[in-house]
Amino acid sequence: MLVLRHIRQLITCAGAAHRGRSLSGVAAIVAGAVAAAGVRIVFAGRDADLPPAIAAAADAQVIDAARYSVVPGFVDAHTHAMFAGDRRDELRRRLAGATYPEIAAAGGGIVATVAATRAASDRDLVEATRRRLDEMLACGTTTAEIKSGYGLDVESELKMLRAIRTLDASHPIDIVATFLGAHEIPLEYRTRRHDYVRLVIDEMLPRVADERLAEWCDVFCETNVFTPDESHRILEAGLRRGLNARIHADELGPSGGSLVAAAVGARSADHLIFVPEDGIRAMGDANVIATLLPSAAFYLKLGRFAPARALIDAGVPVALATDVNPGGGFSPSMPFAMTLACFAMGMTFEESLAAATINGARSLDRADTIGSLEAGKLMDAVLIAGDPIDLIRVGAASIGGVIKRGRRMSIAGPEDPAYP
Amino acid sequence: MLVLRHIRQLITCAGAAHRGRSLSGVAAIVAGAVAAAGVRIVFAGRDADLPPAIAAAADAQVIDAARYSVVPGFVDAHTHAMFAGDRRDELRRRLAGATYPEIAAAGGGIVATVAATRAASDRDLVEATRRRLDEMLACGTTTAEIKSGYGLDVESELKMLRAIRTLDASHPIDIVATFLGAHEIPLEYRTRRHDYVRLVIDEMLPRVADERLAEWCDVFCETNVFTPDESHRILEAGLRRGLNARIHADELGPSGGSLVAAAVGARSADHLIFVPEDGIRAMGDANVIATLLPSAAFYLKLGRFAPARALIDAGVPVALATDVNPGGGFSPSMPFAMTLACFAMGMTFEESLAAATINGARSLDRADTIGSLEAGKLMDAVLIAGDPIDLIRVGAASIGGVIKRGRRMSIAGPEDPAYP
Repeated sequence: MLVLRHIRQLITCAGAAHRGRSLSGVAAIVAGAVAAAGVRIVFAGRDADLPPAIAAAADAQVIDAARYSVVPGFVDAHTHAMFAGDRRDELRRRLAGATYPEIAAAGGGIVATVAATRAASDRDLVEATRRRLDEMLACGTTTAEIKSGYGLDVESELKMLRAIRTLDASHPIDIVATFLGAHEIPLEYRTRRHDYVRLVIDEMLPRVADERLAEWCDVFCETNVFTPDESHRILEAGLRRGLNARIHADELGPSGGSLVAAAVGARSADHLIFVPEDGIRAMGDANVIATLLPSAAFYLKLGRFAPARALIDAGVPVALATDVNPGGGFSPSMPFAMTLACFAMGMTFEESLAAATINGARSLDRADTIGSLEAGKLMDAVLIAGDPIDLIRVGAASIGGVIKRGRRMSIAGPEDPAYP
Repeated sequence: MLVLRHIRQLITCAGAAHRGRSLSGVAAIVAGAVAAAGVRIVFAGRDADLPPAIAAAADAQVIDAARYSVVPGFVDAHTHAMFAGDRRDELRRRLAGATYPEIAAAGGGIVATVAATRAASDRDLVEATRRRLDEMLACGTTTAEIKSGYGLDVESELKMLRAIRTLDASHPIDIVATFLGAHEIPLEYRTRRHDYVRLVIDEMLPRVADERLAEWCDVFCETNVFTPDESHRILEAGLRRGLNARIHADELGPSGGSLVAAAVGARSADHLIFVPEDGIRAMGDANVIATLLPSAAFYLKLGRFAPARALIDAGVPVALATDVNPGGGFSPSMPFAMTLACFAMGMTFEESLAAATINGARSLDRADTIGSLEAGKLMDAVLIAGDPIDLIRVGAASIGGVIKRGRRMSIAGPEDPAYP
């Protein structure tokens, strides 16, 4: 039994997945308490309402959290955290003025990551990704989605998904696997793209489904990548094999992904920087969640961000994610995604917190078990040194601890009196 | 003697203060070394060139820094880090749509900080600021400017400057004091602003100069704050008393501050979000440094940033600073200022690093002693876990250690093999 008492500000995010501006669950409870028996929460609310039997349980480890605020663990619903190689040097060159085509022509870009990932051993893939997950955990992430998509051949895609499964079993972060064979047309298929779409549908998907390696099927729907029609066919094929649908939509232009998401009944359409008005309406009508990745827009210097306010005002629930990846996904931090949501996308702090927790859980079909601090859900929580709003003070050491499935994962420091 | 050897990438920033795109000092030295005798650097360069007498010195504490990159300690040339009270709640309300006039009408804004600062004891001011300096140090800042300006009466301004002196003597960060009596017209002078300007010039400045409490005099030159003419008179009065000039210029509109800076020979004009073309030209002709504060523009949601490229291309050296303050200066992090410089102001990584180090030192007239890793300068350095570019991966724990005047200030963690 783990009991956090006298919490400075507790925000449970219970019920915060409701659409629009109704966010009752993000009202702060001053002097809160959360208790977990094993991995599950048994109480979250006012410390004054903590049942005496819990407070006095013989096996209870009671932590005085008066210096801390507590929020649900972050749910990062869109990452490409598994890859081999390193493209930091590209970043420096891009900042010095090199364009993506120039970098690609020099052998860089996604092609470089595909080559490195194909060549990597299972073990190297797992260990490189483990370090990235460690960074994400330190930033408060307790559940993360990871996509394949740097293999782009049958065996390499399966290798990635098996490595993701290995990590899920061995890393504290719970991992949700997504098959993204349709991330890009690999070099060797550039002159015969239809053959690659067939490979994804007829060879990769059956293998992924047979081995139960992924819960989701995703497609990068974009001009010069996969067309809306191809995306539709791939996602429908995934659905027939039992893989739920999510999609990279309208990231670099209004290329139709949001409409595909609504047409196939995808749970989430992601990026949406250029989502058109009819796409927003269609998403609202079809109950598609908008998973926004402002860190990607920032690091890619796209000069604009997804229209979060228009989506929220249209009744579309907004989730946030980091998009960790080797090209522009340089930040492992959900709090930084929240910071950009607030200061570059016009969201309120409360909206950004719900988007990083309960709406992320909804985006991954996990809202029954994670995303809010409520009795019956997993005890995944972030301790904040100070007020919850300190999360968006970039550079401040605001994460004072992370609790995953009832276990303390990391702490502020050895001198911290709350953690002897 | 402290010797860092086998440094992964060493960037000395020597000579990097040169104008325009000439930044030879920010080329990375692979396998570098830095050695200090006491507080001063005696060698910085290739490890292969480290003089044997240094490497073999009996009293040398040698650190194998193969996992680390090393850059100069950051010089934060513009902060309002001393204040009492807390305006985090305003931030949340601002994100929920409240305007600054609405917040001010409810008793918030700078007026609230002035009231709290006037009421605070010396000790409370020192301790509140010490915690902020600790945060800044953890982000790699080894020298910081701090302004008065929340007192706005003679005794309260002197109280702030004396507290700044106390901190300089007792905190590892070296502090540069700036008198900013002309930060705002205090409430009690709103109907007789000329009397306040007289108070600043005739009463505050002589006292500040007599007690040698500040090195710089600063003015907030802005529409509805201090006019260009008033700013000119106050800065000239400061110069006559031996206080060098710096100025808040063209932050919220093209209000003329850059031209005042050039006219009085200020060392630095700061903010410059709306600097007009003739202001840029005048600054270039008068050798005024541009100290840019992109974190403030970001957190205030100004919707634009200073024209860093136009300034650099006009030959104006650019420095970066955080603007730590209770209103919009929520980030203590120079690396975040660098991140925004790169991704929102179009600067290269190398330019942003020079701006955060040697050009910050120039902005504060300290380039003879700090800002680059060169023999004879203070041993102020930042150890980066990984490549220097990891500094701008927001949320990554990239600061692996900070060295101030030859002493290690903080380290990555107890498990770190480089620091037994």
